[in-house]
Amino acid sequence: MKLWQKETSTNNLVEQFTVGQDREMDLHLAAFDVLGSLAHTQMLESIGLMSADDLVQIQKELKNIYQSIQKGEFVIEEGVEDVHSQVEMLLTKKLGEAGKKIHSGRSRNDQVLVDLKLFFRSQIAEMVTSVNELFELLIQLAETHKGKLMPGYTHLQIAMPSSFGLWFGAYAESLIDDLELMLAAYKICNKNPLGSAAGYGSSFPLNRTMTTQLLGFEYLNYNVVYAQMGRGKTERILAQAMSSIAATLNKMAMDACLFMNQNFGFISFPDELTTGSSIMPHKKNPDVWELIRGRSNQLQALPNQIMMLTTNLPSGYHRDMQLQKETLFPAFQSLMACLDMSKLMLQNIKIKDNILDDPKYQYLFSVEEVNNLVLAGTPFREAYKKVGADIEAGNFGGKYEINHTHEGSIGNLNLPEVKEMMEKILGEFEFEKVERAIKKLVS
Amino acid sequence: MKLWQKETSTNNLVEQFTVGQDREMDLHLAAFDVLGSLAHTQMLESIGLMSADDLVQIQKELKNIYQSIQKGEFVIEEGVEDVHSQVEMLLTKKLGEAGKKIHSGRSRNDQVLVDLKLFFRSQIAEMVTSVNELFELLIQLAETHKGKLMPGYTHLQIAMPSSFGLWFGAYAESLIDDLELMLAAYKICNKNPLGSAAGYGSSFPLNRTMTTQLLGFEYLNYNVVYAQMGRGKTERILAQAMSSIAATLNKMAMDACLFMNQNFGFISFPDELTTGSSIMPHKKNPDVWELIRGRSNQLQALPNQIMMLTTNLPSGYHRDMQLQKETLFPAFQSLMACLDMSKLMLQNIKIKDNILDDPKYQYLFSVEEVNNLVLAGTPFREAYKKVGADIEAGNFGGKYEINHTHEGSIGNLNLPEVKEMMEKILGEFEFEKVERAIKKLVS
Amino acid sequence: MKLWQKETSTNNLVEQFTVGQDREMDLHLAAFDVLGSLAHTQMLESIGLMSADDLVQIQKELKNIYQSIQKGEFVIEEGVEDVHSQVEMLLTKKLGEAGKKIHSGRSRNDQVLVDLKLFFRSQIAEMVTSVNELFELLIQLAETHKGKLMPGYTHLQIAMPSSFGLWFGAYAESLIDDLELMLAAYKICNKNPLGSAAGYGSSFPLNRTMTTQLLGFEYLNYNVVYAQMGRGKTERILAQAMSSIAATLNKMAMDACLFMNQNFGFISFPDELTTGSSIMPHKKNPDVWELIRGRSNQLQALPNQIMMLTTNLPSGYHRDMQLQKETLFPAFQSLMACLDMSKLMLQNIKIKDNILDDPKYQYLFSVEEVNNLVLAGTPFREAYKKVGADIEAGNFGGKYEINHTHEGSIGNLNLPEVKEMMEKILGEFEFEKVERAIKKLVS
Amino acid sequence: MKLWQKETSTNNLVEQFTVGQDREMDLHLAAFDVLGSLAHTQMLESIGLMSADDLVQIQKELKNIYQSIQKGEFVIEEGVEDVHSQVEMLLTKKLGEAGKKIHSGRSRNDQVLVDLKLFFRSQIAEMVTSVNELFELLIQLAETHKGKLMPGYTHLQIAMPSSFGLWFGAYAESLIDDLELMLAAYKICNKNPLGSAAGYGSSFPLNRTMTTQLLGFEYLNYNVVYAQMGRGKTERILAQAMSSIAATLNKMAMDACLFMNQNFGFISFPDELTTGSSIMPHKKNPDVWELIRGRSNQLQALPNQIMMLTTNLPSGYHRDMQLQKETLFPAFQSLMACLDMSKLMLQNIKIKDNILDDPKYQYLFSVEEVNNLVLAGTPFREAYKKVGADIEAGNFGGKYEINHTHEGSIGNLNLPEVKEMMEKILGEFEFEKVERAIKKLVS
Repeated sequence: MKLWQKETSTNNLVEQFTVGQDREMDLHLAAFDVLGSLAHTQMLESIGLMSADDLVQIQKELKNIYQSIQKGEFVIEEGVEDVHSQVEMLLTKKLGEAGKKIHSGRSRNDQVLVDLKLFFRSQIAEMVTSVNELFELLIQLAETHKGKLMPGYTHLQIAMPSSFGLWFGAYAESLIDDLELMLAAYKICNKNPLGSAAGYGSSFPLNRTMTTQLLGFEYLNYNVVYAQMGRGKTERILAQAMSSIAATLNKMAMDACLFMNQNFGFISFPDELTTGSSIMPHKKNPDVWELIRGRSNQLQALPNQIMMLTTNLPSGYHRDMQLQKETLFPAFQSLMACLDMSKLMLQNIKIKDNILDDPKYQYLFSVEEVNNLVLAGTPFREAYKKVGADIEAGNFGGKYEINHTHEGSIGNLNLPEVKEMMEKILGEFEFEKVERAIKKLVS
Repeated sequence: MKLWQKETSTNNLVEQFTVGQDREMDLHLAAFDVLGSLAHTQMLESIGLMSADDLVQIQKELKNIYQSIQKGEFVIEEGVEDVHSQVEMLLTKKLGEAGKKIHSGRSRNDQVLVDLKLFFRSQIAEMVTSVNELFELLIQLAETHKGKLMPGYTHLQIAMPSSFGLWFGAYAESLIDDLELMLAAYKICNKNPLGSAAGYGSSFPLNRTMTTQLLGFEYLNYNVVYAQMGRGKTERILAQAMSSIAATLNKMAMDACLFMNQNFGFISFPDELTTGSSIMPHKKNPDVWELIRGRSNQLQALPNQIMMLTTNLPSGYHRDMQLQKETLFPAFQSLMACLDMSKLMLQNIKIKDNILDDPKYQYLFSVEEVNNLVLAGTPFREAYKKVGADIEAGNFGGKYEINHTHEGSIGNLNLPEVKEMMEKILGEFEFEKVERAIKKLVS
Repeated sequence: MKLWQKETSTNNLVEQFTVGQDREMDLHLAAFDVLGSLAHTQMLESIGLMSADDLVQIQKELKNIYQSIQKGEFVIEEGVEDVHSQVEMLLTKKLGEAGKKIHSGRSRNDQVLVDLKLFFRSQIAEMVTSVNELFELLIQLAETHKGKLMPGYTHLQIAMPSSFGLWFGAYAESLIDDLELMLAAYKICNKNPLGSAAGYGSSFPLNRTMTTQLLGFEYLNYNVVYAQMGRGKTERILAQAMSSIAATLNKMAMDACLFMNQNFGFISFPDELTTGSSIMPHKKNPDVWELIRGRSNQLQALPNQIMMLTTNLPSGYHRDMQLQKETLFPAFQSLMACLDMSKLMLQNIKIKDNILDDPKYQYLFSVEEVNNLVLAGTPFREAYKKVGADIEAGNFGGKYEINHTHEGSIGNLNLPEVKEMMEKILGEFEFEKVERAIKKLVS
Repeated sequence: MKLWQKETSTNNLVEQFTVGQDREMDLHLAAFDVLGSLAHTQMLESIGLMSADDLVQIQKELKNIYQSIQKGEFVIEEGVEDVHSQVEMLLTKKLGEAGKKIHSGRSRNDQVLVDLKLFFRSQIAEMVTSVNELFELLIQLAETHKGKLMPGYTHLQIAMPSSFGLWFGAYAESLIDDLELMLAAYKICNKNPLGSAAGYGSSFPLNRTMTTQLLGFEYLNYNVVYAQMGRGKTERILAQAMSSIAATLNKMAMDACLFMNQNFGFISFPDELTTGSSIMPHKKNPDVWELIRGRSNQLQALPNQIMMLTTNLPSGYHRDMQLQKETLFPAFQSLMACLDMSKLMLQNIKIKDNILDDPKYQYLFSVEEVNNLVLAGTPFREAYKKVGADIEAGNFGGKYEINHTHEGSIGNLNLPEVKEMMEKILGEFEFEKVERAIKKLVS
């Protein structure tokens, strides 16, 4: 069944090629498609394009379908092209001709657009929640391990003293900036494209402000041509926000792989979180971190895939856009899995004690010594030269006390201030506004 | 002269390879390097690492250098490695040993970091101003040409009636969403990394909150390890924000090229804004739009370049980061040029009258006709079939009135509401706060 | 069952995350895994690491498994980690301990490497065959339609006369150059990594030359460290070769969408190869071409995905490499589908007659006119100016004869020479050599 | 001066924006532009479009210009648009009207196309020569250091014994496969586009076979529409070949940075090839390797930049193509610099002795021990378990002899065979054929 089918039947190969993975991907959209129809039909009734009786029946049936989706019972049947057709079919089965009326004043174009924006909003809420859990775990680990020193590297060369407090705390703070990008993506998703029809609006006197409020959107995509341009653009911006979280995980995973390497040996994980080798009985491999690193690279490559798909295309809908579903949807699961696995690993991390006792790390303290000389009155350049000469001559050594006190340093991690920054940005999402609107719509 | 030079001299080839385009790129940073030193030295004096007398002298001299930069008189001399060395050299020439004291409690790492963030903040302010000018021009064109109808295409097939009001307005609204991303980039740039030294902090009792206020930053990058991680990440996020503006320009440019094509023939430009052919005397080529399209693709490829450079690297500074200057800095000029040329072209656009009178566009009105039948009582599916059959049989035609009234449609562009959205986001940058701080610092 | 399992069991979440889509992807490798084992075991027997009796039994059983794979009956059972484990399990079920001996002198690393190279070789053979079919169709269409003129565009502006003979022929010739890249990929795939073990070789006296010959490889990857480096590199190069074919299809698809657009109207396709609209009864959308364009963009983005995954990683195996299966394997099907659909569409293409009769195309002949004046003695610059002035004044017009005779021009397509170039490159693959080796191995 | 200039003058801003970096980039093309004109004019005379006298004069003057270019004296003067205009202007200064005749039967489009192909051919020859030098150095280092053992890592975990013979040899062999791709690029460059005019051929009876031979091309780009399609495609394929060499250098650089890290400490370089720190007097930083790693990432991102610029564009020339000059041309210098610096560093590498004496590397020999047990009759799985249990219990240790003898292993590097593979591919470029043709053309 195809909504647009005329007499001529479509070639089977064409059908297979054009439908592609749509049926599978559309399952993710089912709940949101029903939400869109719940709002759209209320609006249709309000402008006289649907009778009050039809509305009551349709709303009831749509809510039933919504329940079945929530229970995981909804399927897109064999031979049904997409989720929109499946929902319409279920309605007409129950309600006859009345079921078809949900299509008035709407095109599949704006129907998909609104489904996608509602789906993305919901995915963002899940990702942000998961990011915040990882953030809290990192803050807690920073607090717990703030006294454990480690070498800090620049150019991969031993440089200055660092600490696990700093290391964990750095990744926590990184996630805050990542959420700035996610907030931008959220605001862009949180605008209503419904009512733009095929990208050129409708001659029906639609009330787009009403559907905006019913669906809990903050704004409209006013211009109908722009609403359609959102296809591809919204996906790209969301992918860019995801790539930022991915970049944070990527670096953390690379650090973890390096620090687990026996030449570093700073951290380790229980056997059941590492994997072995088919020929080397001593191996405890960091496969989880390697796959987080790899998956986060796939996620970083995602915005480029979307841009390649959309660039140089003139305005107006093109079928190419459909392929973004299969590019982006699995990325949500991938990022969520990476976040979950990062948490699992970090909950079980073991940190070696007294790492800096190893003599190869003594040069870490050369800057401390230079600074001590400076504080005692030697000009910086001279102090630098003296310590440099000592090192060249093999006379540098001894253990130095670390006394870093300024904001964000080993001895002063500012974790409460960092947590406050996170709270502030979390508050700007205002997820609860959306939740309230959706709750009202389906109840 | 190199700050870190020991006895052994560096191989000339190595020097050439490692310095690369740094000298040229660093000129963009000069003013911001001085700003950083103005704030840093005030702070050094406040914690007792610089005498009040030295401070007075140094501040005076730094302000002189700042003036010379503003006048375009500053150069990085032959044999001087980078901007930081040049400024220090100028100071020591005038002040002797005192000039070297600006280096206390600072590494080149956090010096570059703060220079970059200050530079990026300033570039963002310029880009946002230019985007807003383009926005206002587009809004004005939308208003002027709201009555000029044009065909709307989907799948590049004639679809439904559209208008130049919609077309201009769509790109205006697109720029608003682009600025959401730019705002995220701005917030990330607007955090102070100074005091993170080589990425592991300092044993000096620095007052980072003080430099944060002096430089007009909204927040600190608290964690010093994270401050260093900002290198590469800040650039990537800024490039992502720029890529979004670029994507908007790309689509507009492709539309323009298509609409200038004689098969469309919707728009034209004066001869002095088009170019000719060396062998075809009739050509009026849209080179400007083609180069906007091409440059915007270079800008869209930028975030990927940065990710490729930074991914899979462990934490801590790596020299690879230096290459981002030559990748990102020219992109600012390129985007500004694309914005400027877009404005120049749009200011001179000519739009053909009565485009829809051409009979090939009559099918645009098929949906209108379907909707008319529906409003007169025919169920949608039947109306659709009837009009479809008329078209197949060659019986469809005639001119139809356009009466689109809903939000964002041909007859109701909602330009005031769109302008209000733009005002709102512009306000969130709070550029004036930064300007006040900088003014105070240099006066 | 995991080959490397020690006492400690692996966390379930870890197992799920690390296995990922491997089971599904590995099905593509099954036949090639058996081929590798057939060669490896013959070699083991020849160096005394397997008894002649064991060899006979194992070869027999492996050939049975190969048959079952060819019949589509092979599955990777629930709880079995990958294809290698499944094959070993089937062997040990039948042969007991003897079945385990196929693992001697081999690591999973070189086992996967050889599986991949054999699989890629086979996929390349299929892609090349399909490319050649498309080539032949294009050549035939070029011949058929060589007399049909069309406008040639530069800058999307009407430029000079072209023909459908040229248009089809151009894409045919493009495929030849694409195969140059594919040939490079093939040569790189056609080198034997087996015997490199985990990337550092083996203390067993393996005979790698023997497995090279048995598997029909042209060369060895000699250096065992390099053999391992091939992971990621081979995939990237293959993806680059595929991206080249994709770029050719992308341009053809964009041309097709444009030429189907009613403002051009040069070509059309039967209804059953186009799709309709849910609200616009007159639409005949080029969805197939749009999806070829989109899929070819996904393919063009592929090499970048692989580079992002592999760059900045030090030598030696990393688990990240595993993710390339799910990135690359579906791309084979996608490219094959795009090639198939291109053929289907082109077989049914209809070309409009007398396109150039439309008066808007008269300027196409301005260069002809300039050239005529030149041949009659006017200097080029003067001729150019005269025709330019005629056009400005509206005095240019009339129909001109096309008489292009040089190599590769409208009147002289050189199709036999182009076909000869294709024959030459096809011959360089020498697929039959490989086929002979494989046939011998499994019979 | 612009070839196509009509009465109306072009806006200055437009001129600046459209010329862009062309003048600077075009200097690279100057010599090749003259070569193209030398061939083109000979051909024009042969078909009667140029008198024998004019030919003599023009050839003489073109050869003079060629000499001035070789001496570095050629400039593109202020106000001259590009290299083609500069050459024509020099000719007309000397020869008057006759100088303009070099433009007959040619468009700037095919003139640029042939310039680019000639330039790329020449750049490929330089790159291949440099790659071969690096190859020979690596082979020599492999031979010299074949007895120096090092740990081999998988998953960045200590895995099995390796050697510096293997390490150097691996990168040597990698370069061979990289040249396969470069050979494909070379073959694609080595086809003549001249005579395709603006992409639709010419009504003049050009003899394209003649210019093909004169310029030493192996084949023609027959189809004139395809010849034009080569713009962008040739660049992309060449960039892909360069990205492959870059990927090899990237991995080598990452290894070098890791092995210089004090936790590994396998290799070191003289002080004059490393750099210091402005605050840490003990630092010897691997900046050269980091910049090779970074530049090779810029090179790896290059093909994607080109694809982004060209994808989704219909056939025919677009001005966007011009931007590829500034994207690709600097990449040649960058890759050459990376190759040169790699050679400089490797010529000075120092390798630590007796690395494996460190007790942390004893587990490297676990597979050796498993294999020993297997050779002594224990089934593999049992041997694996026994050694695994010994390791868990802390009972594994002792020094083991390495006796790897198979092809490509520590004890048998097959360097002569690897060199032979290199010789074979070098031979396939047949650079001398081209050199002969060019020599004849300019003498």
